[in-house]
Amino acid sequence: MSYGERRRRAAELAEQAGLEGLLVTPGGDLAYLTGYAPLPLERLTVLIVRPSRDPLMLVPQLECPGAAAAPGATGIELVGWLDGDDPYLAAQRFLGPGRWAVTDQTWASHVMGLQRAAGDQVFEAASEALPLLRAVKDADELAALRAAGAAADAAFSDMVVMPFEGRRESQVAADLADRLRAHGHQSADFTIVGSGPNGTSPHHEAGERVIVADDVVVLDFGGHMDGYCSDITRTVVVRGPSTEQAEVHAVVRAAQQAAFDAVAPGVACQDVDRAARAVIEEAGYGERFAHRTGHGIGLEVHEPPYIVEGNVTALQPGMTFSIEPGIYLTERFGVRIEDIVAVTADGAKRFNEAPRDLAIVG
Amino acid sequence: MSYGERRRRAAELAEQAGLEGLLVTPGGDLAYLTGYAPLPLERLTVLIVRPSRDPLMLVPQLECPGAAAAPGATGIELVGWLDGDDPYLAAQRFLGPGRWAVTDQTWASHVMGLQRAAGDQVFEAASEALPLLRAVKDADELAALRAAGAAADAAFSDMVVMPFEGRRESQVAADLADRLRAHGHQSADFTIVGSGPNGTSPHHEAGERVIVADDVVVLDFGGHMDGYCSDITRTVVVRGPSTEQAEVHAVVRAAQQAAFDAVAPGVACQDVDRAARAVIEEAGYGERFAHRTGHGIGLEVHEPPYIVEGNVTALQPGMTFSIEPGIYLTERFGVRIEDIVAVTADGAKRFNEAPRDLAIVG
Repeated sequence: MSYGERRRRAAELAEQAGLEGLLVTPGGDLAYLTGYAPLPLERLTVLIVRPSRDPLMLVPQLECPGAAAAPGATGIELVGWLDGDDPYLAAQRFLGPGRWAVTDQTWASHVMGLQRAAGDQVFEAASEALPLLRAVKDADELAALRAAGAAADAAFSDMVVMPFEGRRESQVAADLADRLRAHGHQSADFTIVGSGPNGTSPHHEAGERVIVADDVVVLDFGGHMDGYCSDITRTVVVRGPSTEQAEVHAVVRAAQQAAFDAVAPGVACQDVDRAARAVIEEAGYGERFAHRTGHGIGLEVHEPPYIVEGNVTALQPGMTFSIEPGIYLTERFGVRIEDIVAVTADGAKRFNEAPRDLAIVG
Repeated sequence: MSYGERRRRAAELAEQAGLEGLLVTPGGDLAYLTGYAPLPLERLTVLIVRPSRDPLMLVPQLECPGAAAAPGATGIELVGWLDGDDPYLAAQRFLGPGRWAVTDQTWASHVMGLQRAAGDQVFEAASEALPLLRAVKDADELAALRAAGAAADAAFSDMVVMPFEGRRESQVAADLADRLRAHGHQSADFTIVGSGPNGTSPHHEAGERVIVADDVVVLDFGGHMDGYCSDITRTVVVRGPSTEQAEVHAVVRAAQQAAFDAVAPGVACQDVDRAARAVIEEAGYGERFAHRTGHGIGLEVHEPPYIVEGNVTALQPGMTFSIEPGIYLTERFGVRIEDIVAVTADGAKRFNEAPRDLAIVG
């Protein structure tokens, strides 16, 4: 889908949602609609998408050349503003009264500037007002996510033959980042290495703990490749698993499979969460799984749809998200298995195919 | 200054500003007050600083272990919230009525969640309500910024002996990033290489243009080193300058020096801007300098105080900011010279000492 088509579709979605339009600041939304990806900073850059008018982008004067050179700039009127001027007053000239959706990542300083200058506008977070703006991926996006997933798989394959015992988590994390880059990632954004008790903290930052024999180690890592994100989790064990370690891993694997099997067009997001949770509860570990089952992924690593209790959004073909149940046994070890999947007419399709069994490492 | 002392000072500043307190989300403010630096994401993490009560941090349950391990966590009560719960309602339990400052970078989705759940609270951007929260650096911060500046200087010294002619801007940019890392930076965040006409776009992204003889090239680069930012600009010329190139460079250099000389405790930020601008206007290039003279720098690359017309904030010893006037001759070439400086009792002190003359490269 071209950038122009995406903007027209965004305007249609806004109209259907009863919005006057959409205010898009740097981040995933702006990259999606224009291909323009400046750093989010204190100077206001905002694309204004309105159902009945051509799109317009208010840009700091000194960044106009960069904005004009963006891949999707054609068809967008650029309006520069100068240091010392008030960009929020400038934006008012283009905003009619009514409800406007605002990119979730827009800085508070910009939100409050817009609110201060507002006439009869009400601003709402895009994830509330237009949660499905980027949720259904087109063919190019699916290909990019599949390629990023394959690269993450390849990075994991490289890892399982590397030594774990006697090395620090931080060293293993550095290897993970290195392997992601070696397989085509431009950036490694997170490299969780949770060994032994550290694995019970789902977002543990790799630290100075030295990995020892019999450790279970959670590896959760990803980054950006050609604009799109990867995110995979595999759990390994040093030397060989105890009966309990193998059992807990088998429960998580079954839960992950159950959630995968629950995916189909029309199914509510919360039902995918419930499918994973039911398996873990049935096995007696319900209280040890204290996070949602997954999150959408695309230009951003976390984006709608969220696979969480209370989200009744119906899945549609082309949606992509993680399925990542886990069990965390306080002060002992954690297990999590995560794949990125896409919804198809026939159910889910995995973008991660690295073996999901409990890999034994040295 | 310890994290606890910083939080007590923040609470005092809030009280003096008539605020109920300060809501601090991931980014520079949170790193400053706690040493905790998670990725800003869709799950709410917020430190609540109140003048008359102990600080409290609301954290996604799965990130509590990481928050508890932060360098400045001692003395902060951690309150976890679970996926599926409403963290904005949870935050309400701790927020009295009145005015609250909110970290500038807080996501719009969080601002709007807080506003939706609010009783009698009004939220204001921290840069408006508490602009000097992090503006005056302590001795450790000054040392970190000095070290980052010295590393950027060293990176530039490496660059001037490298070939420019016949290479693409993107190749030179890759060298800049490599040199920053080689001199101790953990990340190279921006590497502007604006050759010939591209130099007239102050925030030009290095592209595929091949640098040729007689090109003026603007190099503006920086990144993070041990948490603090570098940001330096030097302008070079391939082979040798024309009379006009040398003249324009001399004007920018004189403007940069004039702004430097204008710095002293008690001077208004806008007077530093005016000092640079007067030199450029006097030389007849006033319309060719269409951006502010500088920005504060510290944990973030752009932060208060801004050196811009209209900012009457009085400089204080320990404030750090860039001085970076430029002249941009449309479709021909640009010149900019930028140093980071600190305010001392005796005037400005530079943290960049790389030669400011027009370096001739090959």
